Amino acid sequence: MTADSLLQGSATAMSDAVRSGRSTATALTQASLARIEATDGRVNAFTDVTTRRALDAAAALDRRLAAGDVDAHGLPLLGVPFAVKNLFDVAGLTTLAGSKIERGQPPATADGPLVARLEAAGAVLVGALNMDEYAYGFTTENSHEGPCHNPHDLTRIAGGSSGGSAAAIAAGQVPLTLGSDTNGSIRVPSSLCGTFGLKPTYGRLPRNGSYPFVASLDHLGPFARDVHDLALTYDALQGFDARDPGCVQRAFEPTAGSLALGADGLRIAVLGGYFHDHADDMARAAVARAAQALGVMRTVELPKVAHARAAAFVISNSEGGTLHLPDLRTRPQDFEPLSRDRFMAGALLPAAWVHNAQRVRRWFALRAAELFEDVDVLIAPATPCVAPPIGTEWIELNGQRLPARPSLGLLTQPISCIGLPVCAVPVWGVHATLPIGLQLIAAPWREDCVLRVAHQLQQLGVASSPVAAL
Amino acid sequence: MTADSLLQGSATAMSDAVRSGRSTATALTQASLARIEATDGRVNAFTDVTTRRALDAAAALDRRLAAGDVDAHGLPLLGVPFAVKNLFDVAGLTTLAGSKIERGQPPATADGPLVARLEAAGAVLVGALNMDEYAYGFTTENSHEGPCHNPHDLTRIAGGSSGGSAAAIAAGQVPLTLGSDTNGSIRVPSSLCGTFGLKPTYGRLPRNGSYPFVASLDHLGPFARDVHDLALTYDALQGFDARDPGCVQRAFEPTAGSLALGADGLRIAVLGGYFHDHADDMARAAVARAAQALGVMRTVELPKVAHARAAAFVISNSEGGTLHLPDLRTRPQDFEPLSRDRFMAGALLPAAWVHNAQRVRRWFALRAAELFEDVDVLIAPATPCVAPPIGTEWIELNGQRLPARPSLGLLTQPISCIGLPVCAVPVWGVHATLPIGLQLIAAPWREDCVLRVAHQLQQLGVASSPVAAL
Repeated sequence: MTADSLLQGSATAMSDAVRSGRSTATALTQASLARIEATDGRVNAFTDVTTRRALDAAAALDRRLAAGDVDAHGLPLLGVPFAVKNLFDVAGLTTLAGSKIERGQPPATADGPLVARLEAAGAVLVGALNMDEYAYGFTTENSHEGPCHNPHDLTRIAGGSSGGSAAAIAAGQVPLTLGSDTNGSIRVPSSLCGTFGLKPTYGRLPRNGSYPFVASLDHLGPFARDVHDLALTYDALQGFDARDPGCVQRAFEPTAGSLALGADGLRIAVLGGYFHDHADDMARAAVARAAQALGVMRTVELPKVAHARAAAFVISNSEGGTLHLPDLRTRPQDFEPLSRDRFMAGALLPAAWVHNAQRVRRWFALRAAELFEDVDVLIAPATPCVAPPIGTEWIELNGQRLPARPSLGLLTQPISCIGLPVCAVPVWGVHATLPIGLQLIAAPWREDCVLRVAHQLQQLGVASSPVAAL
Repeated sequence: MTADSLLQGSATAMSDAVRSGRSTATALTQASLARIEATDGRVNAFTDVTTRRALDAAAALDRRLAAGDVDAHGLPLLGVPFAVKNLFDVAGLTTLAGSKIERGQPPATADGPLVARLEAAGAVLVGALNMDEYAYGFTTENSHEGPCHNPHDLTRIAGGSSGGSAAAIAAGQVPLTLGSDTNGSIRVPSSLCGTFGLKPTYGRLPRNGSYPFVASLDHLGPFARDVHDLALTYDALQGFDARDPGCVQRAFEPTAGSLALGADGLRIAVLGGYFHDHADDMARAAVARAAQALGVMRTVELPKVAHARAAAFVISNSEGGTLHLPDLRTRPQDFEPLSRDRFMAGALLPAAWVHNAQRVRRWFALRAAELFEDVDVLIAPATPCVAPPIGTEWIELNGQRLPARPSLGLLTQPISCIGLPVCAVPVWGVHATLPIGLQLIAAPWREDCVLRVAHQLQQLGVASSPVAAL
């Protein structure tokens, strides 16, 4: 099997091939760099390609292998190319966070801990990825870098804010990426580009060494085109870091080994009400297919979901606006035109609104905790619709005209607002040519449950993440 | 020894007397009720006296004793009268929180958990205590109930907001009380009335069943006239309660037994800089006496203390204002004139200020953590000066004219802002007739350290809490 063919498959197959001598880290890295070169002019997923670093790292891994310095089970991601949203610190690159303003900053002096952990697992960093400016958007129509294009239809958006992270996988450039999710920024692009994505529990993975957006809502997490790869990557990412004050100290809870259990013994329900009302027929059909395949008959609801989404809006807007207030005061013209006014409005919000939003959030978290007393995993759509064309201002949803960009987060915001772990899984066949994603949602710290159900859906052929023909 | 004499001594002596049959819970309760009756017209510490409930509870304890249902070590506070700031829920009483507005609310249906825990330890609740409206003040000049008077000089304030909690002890009405401390409300009245008070680590004691002020800063804690009593009470109060989302789950860490260790082996330093600059000669003399008695030569400083105090102001003002916004909109005339305008201003603060205040707070907490790497206990004054006369608008401090009421918290606010445990200990003899308190401050969860040093200072005769001649 050539490195080019391997690159279209799973990370697990790649590392097996390298470990057994059927391929090399260098060959895979070269294949990844070549695919980026061949396709990224059209996709625009990458903002930096770290060619030298990648080839050096791959060569070092190959030397270690040749020297017998890697045991049979060591380095689970051996030789697997990966890339990260450009808000992760990468030594030697300026951490752009999608902005023009940060271009003036010096390069990062060290890799963020999650980048370092994937490299410690044997993965090879090949570059940094396009995103919405300061992670404040759901479309990756970045005015400074140009929009990221959906590999499955280049006229359409990739979703955001981690658009490059999903598009790079769908384009077959790399099999693994990292992104961030504050209000849906892993799940929305996963849904629109047809990748698997994991937003872990709030507090699970450390966020130091990444550019923040909303400290009280930010999550980091992986994307992959295979659930086993996703779980393996998540396991490699786990671990406490005291430098993120929001990081919770918990024991390592491996998930990759539990996938074989599938959905056995898990109590699964469809999340209805608001999540049904704010989805179009295709999103509903995707939920129905998953429910049918899993034999799920039950529908449950959460109360006041729109309030939870409103709370997430207020908190994001206010914390985000505050973070950028000095630049908003002195160089507003350098901000993304699509978010400048929102940041300014956020910087002016009264604190009373934010305190009340935090109260709504706590209340809603308690209601979700009650629901999880007799459900393990909830199924909901990840986006209300498939990827709209780039530049879309308005969408129509069940007869209602809605602003396109914020509405892409209608179904993700209420869930991240209370920090629940979610696996986004892509469903094909409800739209002629495009995927649409589901959210599999569990109680805090139960990443294992959502990954097991995701794996079952992949096994059943309901969920998959094919590489786009480009 | 008569119950009247016992009532002027320690809680430990009271419970010993009851346990050994030399007194009864009923006799002590009657003595307490009689002392309240005889003195409270002048002190105004109590807003409710729960005579019926107290006598019933005492009689029940005496019956249990007679029936042999109390073992030699059971009920550490057996028969000891106590009272609580009127923001604690007491079944059958309306939780006033010092306000006129809450008078229209129905009575509490259950005791708050800390009230219940003291009763479970054998203590007898005799009433509820005067405070600043909604805990927003340092003077207990309550316009609805009338000011609380300092038992050591009835023309002076008792301090606040837990003024009644300190005054009731100084007046010899009860040996134990509970109060709350958001910015200094246990430590300021302890300092001015000459009582011991413990503000535990933020998150240590549950706050459900009490009226909140600033969720992110509120602490509950005990007052006593003896350090052993204080530790015994604190030990009886410890324990997690999930109904307070700010309560941290920790193992029970008994302190009363450790007091005999005194200050042995503890690294103690005077906290200088800001805490020296904002203290008058008497406050400085109190620190010097304690340092000398303990053989402490070292002085350390914290950076940017005024910033931490400013952060505490912004957070308190904003969270407090938000909490009362509905009433401020509809019935502003019913608020305490001394705090109405402050609440209104707080409700209008921009969220950006509050986010930045929270950042200052996290930064300052890290600086304190660094300091505690080689110090165990810090000594600082609790108030800049002794109790001013009721109605004082301005004080002069080292040549600077300052507004009296907020300035009483100059030295306490920066410490509670980062949740450190503090024991307030009263020093006599630096002023002719009035006490002034010190703060003994430790790293989070090290209540044992501050109580041990407090006990040592009591043993050395530097700190004491005599009953006022009334």
